[in-house]
Amino acid sequence: MSQPSAYQALTASFTRLHRYGHLAAMVSWDQATMMPPKSNDARAAAQAELQVLMHATLTAPALAVQLQQAEQEPLDTLQRASLREMRRAWQQANLLPASLVEAQALAGARCEHAWRSQRPANDWAGFLENFREVVQLSRQEARLLAEAQGCSPYDALMEKYEPGMRSVDIDRIFSAVKQWLPGLISAVMDKQSHEHVLPPQGSFPVEQQRQLGLSVMKLLGFDFDAGRLDVSVHPFCGGVPEDVRITTRYREDDFMQSLMGIIHETGHARYEQGLPHALLHLPVGQARSMGIHESQSLSFEMQLGRNPAFLALIAPLIRQHLGEQPAFAADNLALLYSRVRPGFIRVDADELCYPAHIILRYEIEKALIEGEIEAEDIPALWDEKMQAYLGVDTRGNYRQGCLQDIHWTDGSFGYFPSYTLGAMYAAQYFAVMRRGMPDLDQRIAAGDLSAVTDWLQQHIWSQASQYSTAELIEQATGEALNPEYFRAHLQARYLG
Amino acid sequence: MSQPSAYQALTASFTRLHRYGHLAAMVSWDQATMMPPKSNDARAAAQAELQVLMHATLTAPALAVQLQQAEQEPLDTLQRASLREMRRAWQQANLLPASLVEAQALAGARCEHAWRSQRPANDWAGFLENFREVVQLSRQEARLLAEAQGCSPYDALMEKYEPGMRSVDIDRIFSAVKQWLPGLISAVMDKQSHEHVLPPQGSFPVEQQRQLGLSVMKLLGFDFDAGRLDVSVHPFCGGVPEDVRITTRYREDDFMQSLMGIIHETGHARYEQGLPHALLHLPVGQARSMGIHESQSLSFEMQLGRNPAFLALIAPLIRQHLGEQPAFAADNLALLYSRVRPGFIRVDADELCYPAHIILRYEIEKALIEGEIEAEDIPALWDEKMQAYLGVDTRGNYRQGCLQDIHWTDGSFGYFPSYTLGAMYAAQYFAVMRRGMPDLDQRIAAGDLSAVTDWLQQHIWSQASQYSTAELIEQATGEALNPEYFRAHLQARYLG
Repeated sequence: MSQPSAYQALTASFTRLHRYGHLAAMVSWDQATMMPPKSNDARAAAQAELQVLMHATLTAPALAVQLQQAEQEPLDTLQRASLREMRRAWQQANLLPASLVEAQALAGARCEHAWRSQRPANDWAGFLENFREVVQLSRQEARLLAEAQGCSPYDALMEKYEPGMRSVDIDRIFSAVKQWLPGLISAVMDKQSHEHVLPPQGSFPVEQQRQLGLSVMKLLGFDFDAGRLDVSVHPFCGGVPEDVRITTRYREDDFMQSLMGIIHETGHARYEQGLPHALLHLPVGQARSMGIHESQSLSFEMQLGRNPAFLALIAPLIRQHLGEQPAFAADNLALLYSRVRPGFIRVDADELCYPAHIILRYEIEKALIEGEIEAEDIPALWDEKMQAYLGVDTRGNYRQGCLQDIHWTDGSFGYFPSYTLGAMYAAQYFAVMRRGMPDLDQRIAAGDLSAVTDWLQQHIWSQASQYSTAELIEQATGEALNPEYFRAHLQARYLG
Repeated sequence: MSQPSAYQALTASFTRLHRYGHLAAMVSWDQATMMPPKSNDARAAAQAELQVLMHATLTAPALAVQLQQAEQEPLDTLQRASLREMRRAWQQANLLPASLVEAQALAGARCEHAWRSQRPANDWAGFLENFREVVQLSRQEARLLAEAQGCSPYDALMEKYEPGMRSVDIDRIFSAVKQWLPGLISAVMDKQSHEHVLPPQGSFPVEQQRQLGLSVMKLLGFDFDAGRLDVSVHPFCGGVPEDVRITTRYREDDFMQSLMGIIHETGHARYEQGLPHALLHLPVGQARSMGIHESQSLSFEMQLGRNPAFLALIAPLIRQHLGEQPAFAADNLALLYSRVRPGFIRVDADELCYPAHIILRYEIEKALIEGEIEAEDIPALWDEKMQAYLGVDTRGNYRQGCLQDIHWTDGSFGYFPSYTLGAMYAAQYFAVMRRGMPDLDQRIAAGDLSAVTDWLQQHIWSQASQYSTAELIEQATGEALNPEYFRAHLQARYLG
């Protein structure tokens, strides 16, 4: 019997990591959906221990040798891509000392847990006490990653979520958006001021909303034998590809946000459920990036979900679960779901205002990580930018201001640009789909969602991480990321 | 700075193990309550990986050295007890090769998962295919443990659940029970044939039963900030002491079993929640044994729960949640919950028939592990013993016969005696309590459950594993296990 190759040895290590990742994903889901408060310290300690273990597995000296040796082995194209992704995961881990990884896990868990009660209490001062440590540790992380990768600290963090993307690119894209977005928002609000829209008349009991959500998930092809829908304060898509756990939150006076939130998370979920099963244990079999991930949720929420053809399709489901009322006519639902109204909350934002929320967060977190501002400067900057970009006054309103998102609580700086990149990728996919299927809206209205999901399965989900984001977009759409598709989509939907 | 002592080094390793155990407990709970079916293979692989890791942690060569060195260190009484329990955990693990541990985890998960659908399908033949491997691996385990510990294979397995107990003791205790139990059962059934009992009129919606269960848990002092109630096919108490997860199952045509099941699991839960917090990370801070654990659940279910004084206390809660009806009068509830009726299902058995279910399982599993019978012999033996002990015909009825319990599916042989030992310990506790508090029943009826729970907290929960089971019972009750208290309790309650 011959020795296992270095590539085979690496496969064994990454399979082990995949299983540890399964444990980490499930207890994180539990923490956000099920866990009672007094368990927090024990859970945080167990999660930190697991992070240390995963870090130790990725930093074992043998891996460095095996990665070198595997480069010399006769590998096929898929194995080469697999090796590249292994190396990427290895580098991310090996640039950071275990003590920092553990300190970040602990500080993040503490800050996030306290935030769950500080946010409703509007307690910025209390939050700041934990948050300063999170920022300080993230800066350490960013500095270490940046020195090794030869990029800026913020770019080094963004690399974790959207490999290959740089803030010079984001700056260019976002400054263009800032040129045309305010004008577009006011033109649309002006146009909509003449529209007659019927508001839905509540209340809408939680159980009925849940049943509606489940039926829309079913329509969208969510596999309930490989996933669940639950409730959490901050909706997310978690779990593992074999068992995708999405969450939402319900308000009895408004079903619309929760329903669209479920459609958003179902987009994430179908990406995970559509990844190639034979590769799930390896980095190459995992989702490409968070930008691509958001492009799936936003394909579902924005491109599909707010499309009048889709709303006509689900209008009967809404009436079935929530009862008949004039507001549930398909035309009125389309007006409701395209309503542009600047507001406080990112996750509740309409399609047009959303990029403004992202640009604001991007600018603040970049300055924070680069050391240009400190944590205590955030509220003033938040107020200023909300006023400038959306004309909204957030002074003293931390709850609906800078305390609203979970991302910063555990140090996930560099993630936010993924949302708007995702919206842009999604607009580009649908432009290509429409080119090949001019009757796309008729198909959607007729319930043939496979027109959309087959395309995504073929071009995105089944590709996993075999290609870089840039290659994936090029192969799927025939060109590089082109933000013009996003602008054209918004123009057509809101002023067309 | 001085070197950390060997005892300190051991403490660090066992703290790590405690955190891994947290992960294992939570994903096991999730598997039984939340997990969708297609996740089974990925979950089983992740759980097996974690078992291997825990086993590797316990078998690290340094531990053997540290255990030796710590014996020579100046330790206080508690540290000595702690060291003894560390050594016990270490021995259990070091007698088994990692390959066997992994094979057992995988075979057990496969068998248990398939059983979840095979049981309702009455599919003994299908079950047998997986079960043969479980038995074969458990025999290997038993043989390895027995050789090292100088006891019989079955005793070696029982040692995992009730350290110090031997089958020669169990044989003596159970053969005495077999002498008086059948006569007692018929005398009680004869007496009860003259009683007039009103059956409850259902149905009882699940959500109302759940609310009733929650209110009784609250009355019993369950800490909802450190635990939850959920649903599973086979009710259990899982999770960790900081976060105790109990489950039940509901039938709309019968609330009585579910309610008493919740009271049973709440007994387990309060033991866990009452363990000394400062010691939870060490073996000495954990529950003493499964026999002692069952003595808590049965103190709650049998001694307290079926006590007419307690039923008078909760009768108003039952009426509040399930509506008024004559059957919910306190006297009638006492008759209902003391009804003796031989039946198929262990977990639904009344207090008198329960020991017969246990003796049957004990005799079969002992013969199976000792190699006197094979897995395929179980149904015939089951039929014969159910007929002999309870006069019940189970032929061909695997679903309500030998397929009913989860214990054998994952190889938990040696556990069953714990239930009847627990019932006997519980009877002994209450005899002692009554000696000190002749007005115990009046206190209970008045809602003063602290009379019971303070005694258990002081004598059992707070003691954790500082003493052996025999010492614990001796200190708590002033004498060794004395099955006569159990017999006297049954006589008094059912013929008194």
